[in-house]
Amino acid sequence: MNAKIKWLRNQLISSKLEGMIISNPVNVRYLTGLSEEGFFIVAPKENIFVTDSRYIESVNRNLTISDEIVAYDSKNLSKYDYESIFTTNDNVGFEENYVTYEKYKNYLHTYQVNLMETEGLIENARVIKDKEEIENITKACEITDKAFEYIIRNLKEGMSEKDVAFEIEKFMIQNGADGLAFDSIVAFGENSSMPHAVPTDRKIRKGDIIQFDIGCKYNGYCSDFSRVIFVEEVKEEYKEVYDFVLNEQEKLSIMLKDGSNIKTIIKDRETDYKLKNYEVLHAFGHGVGLDIHERPILRSKQDCILKENSVIAIEPGVYKTGKFGIRIEDTFLVGKSGCIRLTHANRDYTVVKLGK
Amino acid sequence: MNAKIKWLRNQLISSKLEGMIISNPVNVRYLTGLSEEGFFIVAPKENIFVTDSRYIESVNRNLTISDEIVAYDSKNLSKYDYESIFTTNDNVGFEENYVTYEKYKNYLHTYQVNLMETEGLIENARVIKDKEEIENITKACEITDKAFEYIIRNLKEGMSEKDVAFEIEKFMIQNGADGLAFDSIVAFGENSSMPHAVPTDRKIRKGDIIQFDIGCKYNGYCSDFSRVIFVEEVKEEYKEVYDFVLNEQEKLSIMLKDGSNIKTIIKDRETDYKLKNYEVLHAFGHGVGLDIHERPILRSKQDCILKENSVIAIEPGVYKTGKFGIRIEDTFLVGKSGCIRLTHANRDYTVVKLGK
Repeated sequence: MNAKIKWLRNQLISSKLEGMIISNPVNVRYLTGLSEEGFFIVAPKENIFVTDSRYIESVNRNLTISDEIVAYDSKNLSKYDYESIFTTNDNVGFEENYVTYEKYKNYLHTYQVNLMETEGLIENARVIKDKEEIENITKACEITDKAFEYIIRNLKEGMSEKDVAFEIEKFMIQNGADGLAFDSIVAFGENSSMPHAVPTDRKIRKGDIIQFDIGCKYNGYCSDFSRVIFVEEVKEEYKEVYDFVLNEQEKLSIMLKDGSNIKTIIKDRETDYKLKNYEVLHAFGHGVGLDIHERPILRSKQDCILKENSVIAIEPGVYKTGKFGIRIEDTFLVGKSGCIRLTHANRDYTVVKLGK
Repeated sequence: MNAKIKWLRNQLISSKLEGMIISNPVNVRYLTGLSEEGFFIVAPKENIFVTDSRYIESVNRNLTISDEIVAYDSKNLSKYDYESIFTTNDNVGFEENYVTYEKYKNYLHTYQVNLMETEGLIENARVIKDKEEIENITKACEITDKAFEYIIRNLKEGMSEKDVAFEIEKFMIQNGADGLAFDSIVAFGENSSMPHAVPTDRKIRKGDIIQFDIGCKYNGYCSDFSRVIFVEEVKEEYKEVYDFVLNEQEKLSIMLKDGSNIKTIIKDRETDYKLKNYEVLHAFGHGVGLDIHERPILRSKQDCILKENSVIAIEPGVYKTGKFGIRIEDTFLVGKSGCIRLTHANRDYTVVKLGK
């Protein structure tokens, strides 16, 4: 049994729970390493992975005896089998932030237990990364760095946002990524004013600002990275915003460290924005791991103490509706005395010439 | 206001509901055409789309006055604004099959209404496609056909499952697809025995069977398509299974039509499997639309009458653990007298030679 499942079993004991039903596939993968469809039950007698006949062969290939996980094909489990997993009226944890209302009622009926909310127990554990997780994220960041370096050297006249996004994906997959961490954002000129722009057929033009927001997965773990670059020239109007955003990211990466209260640090950034009359359109960043957006979220809503070995994306941005936007983002490992950058691209004004 | 929202308003009246909160993004897109993050409320006084500052500009670019949808940035809505959308204790529909238990409790608190289950009201409406939806699916099927034709002509020595999957995706996007409908399955040789195999670095070999299960999206609508092909030769052991699967698909596409009871027809297919001692590892098919898997599901669990203008994927498969699998799948439009094929690739034994 691995350290993560052991940890969970101890947590359940101290919370006076007889077990837990884990339905969120990301939490299932975190605990078991399995990425096949199914759910995981930590029960008094055993650890159970329930899948279906489409996946059972693959699951059995991936599990070893030392995993101490028994895999079942759901079609071989009877009503009685489910009822025997726990004792009637046991207190059993479930993921209230993942399980639908319909499924909740279904679980009550199937397991005949009291379902207890677990308040993000596993998501909170996922905040602190172990050595292997950090290695996977570091590798995803390396591939992302290389993809960015490749694409800015290969921008050509006539390319559309879609073309550029596609070249990035191709490069990432050919260089070892499992796939994208999220749909790439590649926004030319005025499209950059939308923080979540979707790539269009808009073609690249001289004078354009280009916003990239890209990331990939390696062994399931994500990277997250944003830059803007300039085609042939940097217009004056961009510089003031660029410098401001860069400075905000720099401040954040120095101030955010083991023990710091995210709320206080973000409140100060919001003041910086107010003084410049800029609007804050999204959080200043977020945890990165098996999910592209996970805990902690960098915002000022509530107190939250940052911890060593968290991995976070720091991504301040400023957006001028209908004109342009600038967001600079890197993935960082949180350390004792500040953040360690895991994505490394240059943050000076980057001016590119278009190939023919 | 479009026909779909008008239909929903009428449904709510006959169900004695004062409104509905639609949270499932696919249902939101179906009703509004909007693909930005957010949720949609059909309220007594207006139709409301609530998004956040990352998307509000894009939403406002996409909506016109005739949509009769008011878009709000959530940060501008107060507790009082939410409470004023409905009258306290109104009966309001919600999607119990999408909304988490946590969100359910949050909705109760936010809107101060009685939340009523809607039992897949919108999902059931989505079963019958209108002209525009059928056109979109047809287009997605055309792109898929072309991608398959392209890839089987361009298989080369040394290609891995990942390489082939990547070429398919590239072709689809370059030929007008929004993106993939799902992660492509490309499984060589023994990997084909897993219905949901994930592409690996396994290289193509002479004598391999290759299972493809691929599809793309066009204007958000999906296609779904599977074939097996043979590298250089068709081994005898494959032929019996291939012929059986093909025959099952043929029977299904003739028998499934407007008014037929899916349960009866599938029960007959299960008997065919039993007679051959083959195991049924997954459903015989499913609806296809904005979701790759939607209603109806082709299985024998309960009575379900098929209706004209549904779109379904029919996909019988037989799997020999650790050896090989064969699945043949097309997307079909359900008509009065049978199913009309929307994906058109040849279903004879297809033998390919590898390029150098």
